[in-house]
Amino acid sequence: MSQISQMGQTARNVTDIPDVTLILSGRYLIASSRSRDVQEQENISVAVASDRIVEIGPNLADKYPQAKCISHAHGLIMPGLINTHTHAAMACFRGLADDLPLMEWLQEHIFPREAQLTAEIVYQSTLLSLCEMIKSGTTSFNDMYLFAKDVARAAHASGMRAWLGEVVYDFPSPNYGELENGLRYTEELFDLYAGHELITVTVNPHSVYTCSPALLERLAAQAEERDTLYHIHLAENQDEVNTCMERYNCSPVQHLENLGLLNKRVVAAHGVMLTEEEAFLLARQKVKIAHCPESNMKLASGVAPVPAMLKQGITVGLGTDGCASNNDVDMFGEMNSAAKMHKVMQMDPTVMHAAETLHVATQGGATLLGAEKEIGMLAVGKKADLIMLDMDQPHLTPVYNPISHLVYAAGGGDVIHSVINGQVVMQDRQIITLDEKAIIAKMKEIGERVRNMK
Amino acid sequence: MSQISQMGQTARNVTDIPDVTLILSGRYLIASSRSRDVQEQENISVAVASDRIVEIGPNLADKYPQAKCISHAHGLIMPGLINTHTHAAMACFRGLADDLPLMEWLQEHIFPREAQLTAEIVYQSTLLSLCEMIKSGTTSFNDMYLFAKDVARAAHASGMRAWLGEVVYDFPSPNYGELENGLRYTEELFDLYAGHELITVTVNPHSVYTCSPALLERLAAQAEERDTLYHIHLAENQDEVNTCMERYNCSPVQHLENLGLLNKRVVAAHGVMLTEEEAFLLARQKVKIAHCPESNMKLASGVAPVPAMLKQGITVGLGTDGCASNNDVDMFGEMNSAAKMHKVMQMDPTVMHAAETLHVATQGGATLLGAEKEIGMLAVGKKADLIMLDMDQPHLTPVYNPISHLVYAAGGGDVIHSVINGQVVMQDRQIITLDEKAIIAKMKEIGERVRNMK
Repeated sequence: MSQISQMGQTARNVTDIPDVTLILSGRYLIASSRSRDVQEQENISVAVASDRIVEIGPNLADKYPQAKCISHAHGLIMPGLINTHTHAAMACFRGLADDLPLMEWLQEHIFPREAQLTAEIVYQSTLLSLCEMIKSGTTSFNDMYLFAKDVARAAHASGMRAWLGEVVYDFPSPNYGELENGLRYTEELFDLYAGHELITVTVNPHSVYTCSPALLERLAAQAEERDTLYHIHLAENQDEVNTCMERYNCSPVQHLENLGLLNKRVVAAHGVMLTEEEAFLLARQKVKIAHCPESNMKLASGVAPVPAMLKQGITVGLGTDGCASNNDVDMFGEMNSAAKMHKVMQMDPTVMHAAETLHVATQGGATLLGAEKEIGMLAVGKKADLIMLDMDQPHLTPVYNPISHLVYAAGGGDVIHSVINGQVVMQDRQIITLDEKAIIAKMKEIGERVRNMK
Repeated sequence: MSQISQMGQTARNVTDIPDVTLILSGRYLIASSRSRDVQEQENISVAVASDRIVEIGPNLADKYPQAKCISHAHGLIMPGLINTHTHAAMACFRGLADDLPLMEWLQEHIFPREAQLTAEIVYQSTLLSLCEMIKSGTTSFNDMYLFAKDVARAAHASGMRAWLGEVVYDFPSPNYGELENGLRYTEELFDLYAGHELITVTVNPHSVYTCSPALLERLAAQAEERDTLYHIHLAENQDEVNTCMERYNCSPVQHLENLGLLNKRVVAAHGVMLTEEEAFLLARQKVKIAHCPESNMKLASGVAPVPAMLKQGITVGLGTDGCASNNDVDMFGEMNSAAKMHKVMQMDPTVMHAAETLHVATQGGATLLGAEKEIGMLAVGKKADLIMLDMDQPHLTPVYNPISHLVYAAGGGDVIHSVINGQVVMQDRQIITLDEKAIIAKMKEIGERVRNMK
């Protein structure tokens, strides 16, 4: 674009017409969860140049005939969903063991197998989970797991926007061995992905019950130094609270506060067992909550007081947690469960209304990740992370309020196209960036190995 | 088959080989929710002759080469799901109004529009719901609504197995007008469908708060005379209990007991607000419960004590309720919600385990409908009501326990083929019996009319 002698391009530079490379065109546009951002119009379109949205309006395919156009007469265009807490590689444990008491599930089924994980299993399992995420409309995820370099490698291959880090705890890890290696491993991860367009490395203390106060503090210093998120499981269930009370004579939240570690970098996954005072404290310290209703339900952990948190202005994102406790990473299902669970818990059908739930799954997640200027809604200048649903289906007919359908009737399987950072990652339900068939086939082999692990 | 001179056919008669017309062949077979009825084997197949299953085993397509064979290398064959409480025609209200206080929702949005319903709207809306049911794996449904002749007409067209009846209450109906006409309308319905292979007419008092004791008794006599089910909303929420206490100084369950109306014909939808004594009473009187967890969550009605009911031996089926309070009729989603909701309510991850949940959605429903000898599981001699899922997908990989996937990971969109009463009603997600595109198009028109109703 820089050479004035190239007349065609110059003309476009002069009149400020961007180099539109991609148009998505449909019938409904949900720019954000605000009702004024919902449009129904024939050929409502989003124009993308490189990695950003440059125009929103009707009939943009006519205006930019050179651009690739992906259209559906009954398509709904919306921001990609943001999964704020998952362990993608746990896809290899999907359905391995369910309906068990928590400790039996962890100690007899999950922990012994996690101890035998390898870089290859994590890489392949993450690829599988990425296929599922792309096919169900997620465009960003926040991951915490072992072998994070391999998680990152898979994320890079997929074109997904990712926040990820190596989970760290006091005891030796199947990945890095002794703790000191873990800190070094994380440093290497930061260096490997410095300046990566899509991957942000985070610091991931596992929890207050698996990390000593000294470790929690060292990791906080690392997060501060690297200017990144401090992603931790917090107040997930009563066992965690009990353990913390026994060891430190205070709750998990109070423990972090006593250590001076509650601040705006903290992404607290779950936040189920919170008193009203603790919720106030989290709000005051600008801690963010990654809410995982389906995992909390399936493990019988409890119900996070999300409606109260939202009232206090706490930033809440939605997450699926890992596949071992969900057992999928479908954020549409998660929205449905979140909205319904809170209504019945509060005995009030007005709480967690559809728009609020969609907000949590999009802009809430973006804000939690510190990326609210770039993603979470559709607007000119934002990153082009967007999906299209096929609304021409019995279960989405008629359409009075598209946002209601997204929360109460749609499923991940209704997503037909997905664009991340301006790249088409799925078209007509075919993943472009990954070889889905090969990944599934490989995962079947891995499944046999995981099944037989003792 | 009767002429001895036709040698080929005679040979088959002599050796008792049935006239197999259809084979379904896949990799997994879930004959019932019992673990011993779960098989994984290449080309595991079900052979159908006319309306019944005649053989189950591997490679039946080779054994019966003349039969039509529908196969999928990674297919899972299972009994069709049984929706024990719905109002199919309420599909026309899907997403019209959500997240509102119950009375505002009913009185300002639903009731005024229901008063303007027509036979055509009910017929078309039921067709739409039938498309959705077929595409999400339901093969039987139990319906209660206005214009039941039109519901029946739609069910007949679809090939779905149906239990249905005209909802009756004290006040005039938009369908039949005065109450006496309603009783006559129901009599006509019985006569119209006497002996129909797939449609069973039931008696449907709306509830104890909309039907006088005299009406409840008259309808019970009608159900007795016609030897059919007495399908009623019962103990759905606190408002119903309060109204009943004010009028009759007892709970809804006690009210029916006082009238002598609790018996094995009663299918009670919801059963949310039950004391322990009332649950005992329902068990003793052999009342069946149609459990609708998603509707109960979305309307904030409460949580039915289903784990306790199952312990007491009460027959429980699963239902979606109408689309206005769900907002879909996907029984896979309903299983997922049921299993997770009860775990977190009881703070016990072992309750409503996957197999129990699948049982409720299949054999539980069949027993509730009095059809347990015919449907609800796959076995030689049973009616051929079965579906196949495509398990070759990221969110269903790997497969350690297929029943876990059905409850915790699958969705209605994973169903690829459906057979009801031996008839293929969907193949490769194309509905055979109904014109899905035309039904969706018609429903969009109706949606505009419904939106503008005052």
